[in-house]
Amino acid sequence: MQNFEYQTPTKIIFGQGVIEKLPGVLAQYGKKVLLTYGGGSIKKIGLYQKVLELLKDFEITELPGIQPNPKYNPSVLEGTRLCKEKGIEVILSVGGGSVLDCSKAIAGCACFDGEPWDLITGKAPTLKALPIVDILTLAATGSEYDCGGVISRTETNDKLCYASPLVFPQVSFLDPCYTFSVPKNQTAAGVADAINHILEQYFCEDSTLMNDGFCEAGIKSLMVNGKACIDNPEDYTARAEMMFVCTLACNDIMSLGNSRSGWPMHGIEHALSGYYDITHGEGLAILTPRWMQHILSERTLPRFVKYGVNVFGIDGRLPKMEIAQKAIDSTYAFFQSIGMPMHLREVGIGPERIDEMAHHVAVNEGLENAYVPLDEEDIKAILLASL
Amino acid sequence: MQNFEYQTPTKIIFGQGVIEKLPGVLAQYGKKVLLTYGGGSIKKIGLYQKVLELLKDFEITELPGIQPNPKYNPSVLEGTRLCKEKGIEVILSVGGGSVLDCSKAIAGCACFDGEPWDLITGKAPTLKALPIVDILTLAATGSEYDCGGVISRTETNDKLCYASPLVFPQVSFLDPCYTFSVPKNQTAAGVADAINHILEQYFCEDSTLMNDGFCEAGIKSLMVNGKACIDNPEDYTARAEMMFVCTLACNDIMSLGNSRSGWPMHGIEHALSGYYDITHGEGLAILTPRWMQHILSERTLPRFVKYGVNVFGIDGRLPKMEIAQKAIDSTYAFFQSIGMPMHLREVGIGPERIDEMAHHVAVNEGLENAYVPLDEEDIKAILLASL
Repeated sequence: MQNFEYQTPTKIIFGQGVIEKLPGVLAQYGKKVLLTYGGGSIKKIGLYQKVLELLKDFEITELPGIQPNPKYNPSVLEGTRLCKEKGIEVILSVGGGSVLDCSKAIAGCACFDGEPWDLITGKAPTLKALPIVDILTLAATGSEYDCGGVISRTETNDKLCYASPLVFPQVSFLDPCYTFSVPKNQTAAGVADAINHILEQYFCEDSTLMNDGFCEAGIKSLMVNGKACIDNPEDYTARAEMMFVCTLACNDIMSLGNSRSGWPMHGIEHALSGYYDITHGEGLAILTPRWMQHILSERTLPRFVKYGVNVFGIDGRLPKMEIAQKAIDSTYAFFQSIGMPMHLREVGIGPERIDEMAHHVAVNEGLENAYVPLDEEDIKAILLASL
Repeated sequence: MQNFEYQTPTKIIFGQGVIEKLPGVLAQYGKKVLLTYGGGSIKKIGLYQKVLELLKDFEITELPGIQPNPKYNPSVLEGTRLCKEKGIEVILSVGGGSVLDCSKAIAGCACFDGEPWDLITGKAPTLKALPIVDILTLAATGSEYDCGGVISRTETNDKLCYASPLVFPQVSFLDPCYTFSVPKNQTAAGVADAINHILEQYFCEDSTLMNDGFCEAGIKSLMVNGKACIDNPEDYTARAEMMFVCTLACNDIMSLGNSRSGWPMHGIEHALSGYYDITHGEGLAILTPRWMQHILSERTLPRFVKYGVNVFGIDGRLPKMEIAQKAIDSTYAFFQSIGMPMHLREVGIGPERIDEMAHHVAVNEGLENAYVPLDEEDIKAILLASL
């Protein structure tokens, strides 16, 4: 086991109807609230109205229109300006991971007097941040229980992770009912995203028995409950379990003490959605089986065998390479079964910029230190196989 | 899934050599330190000397001699007095779960002006507490990552859980090397304690796929690594994994959203160690298979089958009742294999006070609301079967 430090101070308030506790929670931080949200789905499900009704004694400033793969310009810059102008005391993020990621960047930039991009890149340290409370409406990224957010800067094709212990949400409200209306394709992309978060931790150099079992249980749960959510969008139990597994899937608790995973699929996918603005979970579903195929070797075989036997129930008496291949095929088949696109062409990506993307990833993502080190040629091969 | 609220703000600093970070961590809370510890084993392993050397710029007041099943009188009362007299700013607990449990009670009582016992019983609310930092030397109770502590009051045979979100340790230092010298019987009692913490969560009315897998992985890891620690006390990897599973085993994260477990084995065991001051883990190991046997029924059968198949690898095609019986027998056999006493007589408990203990548990532990409700007759039957 490797040495580690771990802390997740966020309070989770989980379950049906918990939003009634919002005013009491928010009042601890102040009355001047920046309400951040996305394209308006929270209005369709009545959540926006409910929040305003609950917060009628608060002073609300709105930042609507935060997009998937949230943008530095305009969203982060505009939110930062509003916080400074209005003396905002707390950010209330209502939406999915993109709204929350953007809110984290705003929380940091609002307390910083220099060039905001320097904070996002880590050139300047985050020394202070506004408190964040969130109401989650999409089970996927786990941003509600971690201290990072991914921000895109369109003009440079950059997609960077902004992280600081100061931007852990103070309180995350998780009511599975608010995910009932998430469309099938977005539900599926959330499943793919969260499964990948776990796979990125599971495929590593060394791990503990408990971490492996925790990861395997998380993946199996996401497969079973994710499918149930797609088949019956108002299945409370399935939505609830999917929501909570997603919450735990991205804050390291499943892999504390593991060594050298390196998050290679996310590293490569950040280029895809950075260059083409595709849905993150779709990019991951396409890349994952190709990455697996690329790294399968005698060295990685035991990990694939464990994955195949414990997650898919493949017969452990089969030849090891056959188990591994079945595990990869089963991964592909699962993503396909929930309606994920399985080729880059299906999401509008051709071969044209693959060289450029492979170079960008090789330079920026540190994948030479991943579980299986990947150089520019490896990345290119994985992208070509994904076409 | 049930609604829940969850928050564990404690920072874990895990691994070999992490103690070097102690002065920097402690200085955040103050210079006036109450150093709490037990019977002196920390002197034998050189940890006491190391701590004093690292903290030479701090003002240290010592509270030594905290016993297993830590006592309200004298330890909690004496610690409280010292904190008030010396203006203590932070408590540094160096030892196992008993020292830390006692330190939590002191942290609360030190900031309370009424009768301390009223705080322990919950008659008065905990509104403030001193910060606690701990260095753990025994993997067992999980007190390093929860907000409760068990305190015994000898004159009344009371063994109560004192809990408040304000007594979560601020920082827990977990260096597996400090557990190398833990004797085999204490290591085994720690394994039994932690396995029981997980079983208490696993045997419940409803649970999630992920919680079940998380629990099963934890139990399996404790069985494998616990045995390895007993066979080779300086096996770093085994000590490390055992330590970290124990840390996660008692803070609810393995069972969030599960319904109605009720912690019946702990409820009964608190009477045993309250009346006879036996080792908590030994009491649990004795009770567990008898409790399982007592609650086995058509209703509980599916849970036993899942436990048997997933934890012990019992063939799932066998008749269900046979799987369940094998699971109970395997539980017994495991505890026996690590050298646990398996009869109350072996730890000095005869039939004399069983009626009295059964009554005490029935009145005080709320087991009428457990997974399988237990009344005084049930509790008596379990205790008699444990003789």
